[in-house]
Amino acid sequence: MPKVTVHRKAHFNAAHRLYREEWSDDKNFEVFGKCNNHNFHGHNYELIVSLTGEIDQETGYVYDLGKLKRIIKIEIEEALDHKNLNLEVEEFKTLNPTAENIAVVIFNKLRKHIPLHLEIEITLYETPRNFVTYSGN
Amino acid sequence: MPKVTVHRKAHFNAAHRLYREEWSDDKNFEVFGKCNNHNFHGHNYELIVSLTGEIDQETGYVYDLGKLKRIIKIEIEEALDHKNLNLEVEEFKTLNPTAENIAVVIFNKLRKHIPLHLEIEITLYETPRNFVTYSGN
Amino acid sequence: MPKVTVHRKAHFNAAHRLYREEWSDDKNFEVFGKCNNHNFHGHNYELIVSLTGEIDQETGYVYDLGKLKRIIKIEIEEALDHKNLNLEVEEFKTLNPTAENIAVVIFNKLRKHIPLHLEIEITLYETPRNFVTYSGN
Amino acid sequence: MPKVTVHRKAHFNAAHRLYREEWSDDKNFEVFGKCNNHNFHGHNYELIVSLTGEIDQETGYVYDLGKLKRIIKIEIEEALDHKNLNLEVEEFKTLNPTAENIAVVIFNKLRKHIPLHLEIEITLYETPRNFVTYSGN
Amino acid sequence: MPKVTVHRKAHFNAAHRLYREEWSDDKNFEVFGKCNNHNFHGHNYELIVSLTGEIDQETGYVYDLGKLKRIIKIEIEEALDHKNLNLEVEEFKTLNPTAENIAVVIFNKLRKHIPLHLEIEITLYETPRNFVTYSGN
Amino acid sequence: MPKVTVHRKAHFNAAHRLYREEWSDDKNFEVFGKCNNHNFHGHNYELIVSLTGEIDQETGYVYDLGKLKRIIKIEIEEALDHKNLNLEVEEFKTLNPTAENIAVVIFNKLRKHIPLHLEIEITLYETPRNFVTYSGN
Repeated sequence: MPKVTVHRKAHFNAAHRLYREEWSDDKNFEVFGKCNNHNFHGHNYELIVSLTGEIDQETGYVYDLGKLKRIIKIEIEEALDHKNLNLEVEEFKTLNPTAENIAVVIFNKLRKHIPLHLEIEITLYETPRNFVTYSGN
Repeated sequence: MPKVTVHRKAHFNAAHRLYREEWSDDKNFEVFGKCNNHNFHGHNYELIVSLTGEIDQETGYVYDLGKLKRIIKIEIEEALDHKNLNLEVEEFKTLNPTAENIAVVIFNKLRKHIPLHLEIEITLYETPRNFVTYSGN
Repeated sequence: MPKVTVHRKAHFNAAHRLYREEWSDDKNFEVFGKCNNHNFHGHNYELIVSLTGEIDQETGYVYDLGKLKRIIKIEIEEALDHKNLNLEVEEFKTLNPTAENIAVVIFNKLRKHIPLHLEIEITLYETPRNFVTYSGN
Repeated sequence: MPKVTVHRKAHFNAAHRLYREEWSDDKNFEVFGKCNNHNFHGHNYELIVSLTGEIDQETGYVYDLGKLKRIIKIEIEEALDHKNLNLEVEEFKTLNPTAENIAVVIFNKLRKHIPLHLEIEITLYETPRNFVTYSGN
Repeated sequence: MPKVTVHRKAHFNAAHRLYREEWSDDKNFEVFGKCNNHNFHGHNYELIVSLTGEIDQETGYVYDLGKLKRIIKIEIEEALDHKNLNLEVEEFKTLNPTAENIAVVIFNKLRKHIPLHLEIEITLYETPRNFVTYSGN
Repeated sequence: MPKVTVHRKAHFNAAHRLYREEWSDDKNFEVFGKCNNHNFHGHNYELIVSLTGEIDQETGYVYDLGKLKRIIKIEIEEALDHKNLNLEVEEFKTLNPTAENIAVVIFNKLRKHIPLHLEIEITLYETPRNFVTYSGN
């Protein structure tokens, strides 16, 4: 059967701040610039989840996008939307919430719920001009 | 010569319905949900056709996008635009018109008209949030 | 208090067909072209609902957009999404479902649920290139 | 001379929280929902500044958009970008940073720098689906 | 009958240069900056034509958007697409091709072809961040 | 460490013309159509630069997008923005400025400034409907 990638878009809004606790304020500002602001700033994150696999001959689906929408809602949107990533999301208490790291966290959260014969790719827009892609390697 | 991918966007509007004739109404609704509506619903499909190959040294083109535009117009838009996919398009009389299957059908239609040294990839948006990609494997 | 317009986007997918029953097939085709197809075609309709009024001094809101989102969901999306407008939506059994008429129907449906001190404007995209605006006059 | 409106887009990222100090936590949550989160959340704000006036016969401009870009950069982006609106922006220490109020604040900040024969309109996207418009009345 | 605005998008690519012949190079550069480049630069202009009028009771249309599409194609796209506005378009031989002036020229070209009971508004994007609106006053 | 791709968008406006000096006018028009116009035409080019590599454990970055933004500004935007590609950009004095060739030139310019352990991919939109991708092979 032909192998197709199906994509589903979602989004969430969150606050974050980039810094390393063990660095001085000067070093943090030098590396992370405005993103180091102590009082946080925020983004409308746009997320694309992509699943690659063979088309099921009976349904014509690679994966039911309605089901994927519900998994994203429960596992990602409810965990991250309108949250302060540094203060309220377990994974980022010891991990800098850069777009790169958020994409890896989202990948790992979804990997547990998506059948293993399907490859996953995560695209995460932090702003309309800055975005990242991660596919689990 | 460098290998480049050239992309061309197009679109068409169509009605469709997802179902399997041999299934009960209940099973069809369970699997396809609102997309199973007997009276059809519809979409503005956005299509991206991508061709990969070496740049021609004389023209600087991988493939003339004006020519690709005309092939898409004749082979895809005239065949699918403002059509009911289930009732009026031969390929979908026995094949469920999911985005996955439509992408495969479009790939096969274009494959006959594009020189074989060029790889083809099809991206098809069913809605701004649901889309699929197929490259012929 | 300053007067501000607040806007909320939503969308729905539907099938429709443009025609007048009392006209001949030829006249219908002449006037409505491909949109007259007997077997229906469809669109992803994008909807913007705009409410204009004074900012409430206590909340800083003109109108709670979460509440507007729920009204649009119940009154518009559940009534029109994945429907065949001609066959399944009462208002279009005797009214041609042009973008203009759909915008007027949506306006009238929402007018009953939005406080009268707020002006309403409806913007409805039938395709990314064709859209209409209606504000109740 | 013909009257034309010229528009310039800009953007900034910020954190905020909606609440009234004198209300209970319950009432704040009831009115502002997830936007009331104590630890802030954030947005990529997209801003459109629109100026209406007569075309200058010599230049063909209503207003130099390069100049408008610099005014927006200094007065709006440097004041709001990567900031926590509640904690770091004077105007929102006593004013709820709803999209409505942010639009009014931006209008007032720009009004001082734009010649009085030009009308100003502010469009502010808080998310791609929620936005507001204000023109000074 | 309800008054509705119908909108149609189109686009064209063109080269232009902003300058006044009677000004020195220094003054031209001071006023028009990079847009004054002697060798021209260019844009993908996005155009929205908006017509306001009553819905026709028989068709449900304010104006047939297919017809508007053809008028825009002949009067605007064929006149401006892939052209050098300064050198090849009559109207701009003595008029600076700013976005403001191009919008006025497009308005005047269309006014002759659109019935007088319909109001016209022109929106012209010079870039995704700079655009203008003109409605004939 | 996980391998992630980070993307940064930028843009520039330029004029160009497609032709081969040694060909007749007829042959040039036959191959390049309207793009062969002697007086040039132009585009708003949208550029996406994508870098693939491992996440740095200390910063959580693959590459500082602020730094990438500055490199793109100096190496690409200042070299190409508001320029006539054929007349003013060294690389295109003997190379046809097709989207394919512009992407290759941008890739080569950036390759010198980006550490070698990072892969580069260039996506270049000539118009919203025509675009190309190049990753250095």
